[in-house]
Amino acid sequence: MSQQTALVFDLDGTLVDSVYQHVLAWREALHEVGIELSVWKIHRRIGMSGGLFAQGLLREMDHPMEQSIFERLQNLHAEYYKQKSDQVVPLPGAKELLSRLTELKIPWAIATSGRMKSAGATLETLEIPENVPVVTRDLVPYAKPNPDLFLEAVRQLGVDVTDTIVVGDSVWDLLAARRARTLGVGLLSGGYGQEELERAGAYRVYEDPAELLRHLDELGVRST
Amino acid sequence: MSQQTALVFDLDGTLVDSVYQHVLAWREALHEVGIELSVWKIHRRIGMSGGLFAQGLLREMDHPMEQSIFERLQNLHAEYYKQKSDQVVPLPGAKELLSRLTELKIPWAIATSGRMKSAGATLETLEIPENVPVVTRDLVPYAKPNPDLFLEAVRQLGVDVTDTIVVGDSVWDLLAARRARTLGVGLLSGGYGQEELERAGAYRVYEDPAELLRHLDELGVRST
Repeated sequence: MSQQTALVFDLDGTLVDSVYQHVLAWREALHEVGIELSVWKIHRRIGMSGGLFAQGLLREMDHPMEQSIFERLQNLHAEYYKQKSDQVVPLPGAKELLSRLTELKIPWAIATSGRMKSAGATLETLEIPENVPVVTRDLVPYAKPNPDLFLEAVRQLGVDVTDTIVVGDSVWDLLAARRARTLGVGLLSGGYGQEELERAGAYRVYEDPAELLRHLDELGVRST
Repeated sequence: MSQQTALVFDLDGTLVDSVYQHVLAWREALHEVGIELSVWKIHRRIGMSGGLFAQGLLREMDHPMEQSIFERLQNLHAEYYKQKSDQVVPLPGAKELLSRLTELKIPWAIATSGRMKSAGATLETLEIPENVPVVTRDLVPYAKPNPDLFLEAVRQLGVDVTDTIVVGDSVWDLLAARRARTLGVGLLSGGYGQEELERAGAYRVYEDPAELLRHLDELGVRST
């Protein structure tokens, strides 16, 4: 028999409106190390593991990238993103959705491909209760689309994967959700198209956290 | 009988990699006049007429926007975009595609919802021959999704609409192409999803100008 639903949320593009700032920060970092990559291709890789992002870059480039350049890239991205991060705010309905889940005693957690160093300031804008698990890249061997981040969140919540719904804005969230054997719910707030998310396996797609909050019944979240 | 194909190109996101800079410039301008709109919703409106953009904004807001604020918004957007415009470069294959068309004596033109004041610098990066028609917002009563920009380009080229293919990255380009009774070809380089463009009526969808150049045969463009 099924138990009460648990929810695991991605962070960037799912709870906070930060994807486009990340995209342009990567654009500037890549330009600085001499790599010209179209911005939409960067957008489509946001949220995946940094190592896989670098491998994807290699496919677009004519020459291999040295490890030292990749490390410099990550530092440059962090620096440029920090310059833009004062523009970053929670998405509509994000705080209300999380409060409502806490009120209903629905177990929920956050799992992000980012490191605590860069995600820390973003997490603060959401005012997350102390007992909520926050799984960052630092805690697992592999980031999305590997299932490790979501599996660690499920472990910390003490729930079953088959009762868990992962909420994310990117194809990588939904692919990782399938690998973790959870259901995946897509949000359009990261700028992917609805059909891209559906094709990656989304069980349902909503505009943003506010629309998800208005449709919690569709996920089997009960008020009692 | 059909004549030689003619091509009309949108500018931002189709020939130059400028969509994400426009998106964040709008985000900053809106924030400055006290309007908080999710960034993905701005992205989905890029390329439509400024007046319709403002009407779309009204639908998202609780209170009406005064004309004076809308004018201030447009000026702020132009200012913030200018700050970012040194990052803007032609998309992969754009210059090669346009040269190839000129070489083949295929009539082609550019039609953009932007005004010459803001599009001027972008057009320069493409090194467009003097005899190529460039239709900007200044020349027609209504911008996309109205067909006026494309119809004016067709008129200046002296070709028939039914021999014309419009190439654009946004849903607004494809809707305007249908209203003009031309065929519309979509490019992913503006960051829309493939299915969004297909659903808006795209005859074919390619990644970017480079991929379109490799598939000119699919549009009936002949080398002789």
